[in-house]
Amino acid sequence: MAPLIVAVQGELGSNSELAALEYFDGRTIDILPCYTFADLFAAVDQGHAQAAMAPVENSLAGSIHDVWNLLLDHHPRVAGEIRLRVVHCLIGLPGATLADVRRVRSHPQALAQCDEYLTALSGVTVEAAYDTAGAVQIIKSENQPQEAAIASAQAAADHGMQILARELSAADNFTRFLVLGEGVTSVGSLKSTVILEMEHTAAALPAVLGRLAARGIEVLKVETCKRIGRPWAYNVYLEFVGGTDGPAGQALAEIGEFVTRRQIVGTYATGVAAEPRLHRR
Amino acid sequence: MAPLIVAVQGELGSNSELAALEYFDGRTIDILPCYTFADLFAAVDQGHAQAAMAPVENSLAGSIHDVWNLLLDHHPRVAGEIRLRVVHCLIGLPGATLADVRRVRSHPQALAQCDEYLTALSGVTVEAAYDTAGAVQIIKSENQPQEAAIASAQAAADHGMQILARELSAADNFTRFLVLGEGVTSVGSLKSTVILEMEHTAAALPAVLGRLAARGIEVLKVETCKRIGRPWAYNVYLEFVGGTDGPAGQALAEIGEFVTRRQIVGTYATGVAAEPRLHRR
Repeated sequence: MAPLIVAVQGELGSNSELAALEYFDGRTIDILPCYTFADLFAAVDQGHAQAAMAPVENSLAGSIHDVWNLLLDHHPRVAGEIRLRVVHCLIGLPGATLADVRRVRSHPQALAQCDEYLTALSGVTVEAAYDTAGAVQIIKSENQPQEAAIASAQAAADHGMQILARELSAADNFTRFLVLGEGVTSVGSLKSTVILEMEHTAAALPAVLGRLAARGIEVLKVETCKRIGRPWAYNVYLEFVGGTDGPAGQALAEIGEFVTRRQIVGTYATGVAAEPRLHRR
Repeated sequence: MAPLIVAVQGELGSNSELAALEYFDGRTIDILPCYTFADLFAAVDQGHAQAAMAPVENSLAGSIHDVWNLLLDHHPRVAGEIRLRVVHCLIGLPGATLADVRRVRSHPQALAQCDEYLTALSGVTVEAAYDTAGAVQIIKSENQPQEAAIASAQAAADHGMQILARELSAADNFTRFLVLGEGVTSVGSLKSTVILEMEHTAAALPAVLGRLAARGIEVLKVETCKRIGRPWAYNVYLEFVGGTDGPAGQALAEIGEFVTRRQIVGTYATGVAAEPRLHRR
């Protein structure tokens, strides 16, 4: 069988790639690295990739609104999900020590999550890079022992670099990915993701949640997000157990007066939490 | 009677000052301009001001989370509220014309709200300033006809500057202020503001809204806000009709299992919507 082409944002060794390797474990895949989230969605739209990993939320940072907006605009097929634990490592040149480090580069999100650790390192400056694994490539090419990156253990192994410290953020650091396009067949229970657009959450949100509760539908996520520039308008990210037909469909049909737009992102098998493993290339 | 000292963020002519003038209409007040929101709360804490205008949300930009966080940390007395319509004007030197303008300065929020207007002005760059009215002071002191600011008509009048264009943003542009410290006696109906801290909004938020609905309490605002760096933790901004005793108090007492912290910001008279007027100095 030909390898499945899976688009990820970032380079090899990024958390998105690790999530793809865990989700498609046992299946031969080829990774298509994408520079931006928009590139990732375009890769699926245009058929350059059969699947893509879309990070929708992180336990420490919250929902990744850029990705939700792309879900609204592109409405790709959602095939599954996976939660990957994020283990941030401080990575330097072979032979470098922690005492050598004067500058740390990584994705701004990773830098923010390791803020407490970085603050405790005295005399060290931080600098943003477009990707965690990409930062490892940069410090490798610069070849200076005072330069370090924050990325996965996989990124260190891929580039023959050295791990100077592990577990730099809170341990309960998970990123949840929706798998776009083609997924794996799963026997897990179903869940659904919906985006509701409403003006004034005050009346609409209690009504929506009340209708779901009245039908015994268990809500898995509910979050509001301001639509900047649109008077009083909010998006609500809503996830619940089961599909969007049957009782949930009835509930969603009843709330028309409260919502200005209702987009069903998808119904898919509930994913598992995975620990990142080291993969041989 | 001695004038009431009212702290506002920004300079004279800022929307915060205009809100103070409308809210305390008929009473003699002295304005205490503050550089940051933290300074504003400190001014009330330390007794340098008897009242302060705290902008909690804008119809286009959403909740001003910095102010909500200060409400959590300082728990000042909330005496009232007012909604002020925000009318952004493009302001230049006397004698300058729209065709002269090459650079526009204002608070980033104001620039964002006027983005559509600014994009249509070709060959113009934008630059952030700490305050709308402060930007007018700056362009006045620089005395260059190609420099303009976005601020209120009041700021233009105060500095003897010229209004080149009015109503630059959506017309439905309102900022809502809570009045901290001393307010005006009002016969309006009461409302309450509460901040709930919860882990996983999925079970907690439907439960909280369900308890309020079961007691017939009308919700006026509900919004989630991620607590960055705290796994899965969110704050919920909740406002409802009435006080926090009686049925609402019972509902809030019942939700203890769902929330990790419950802070009553205050109960106060529901405010009115005001149009900014031009004041003689």
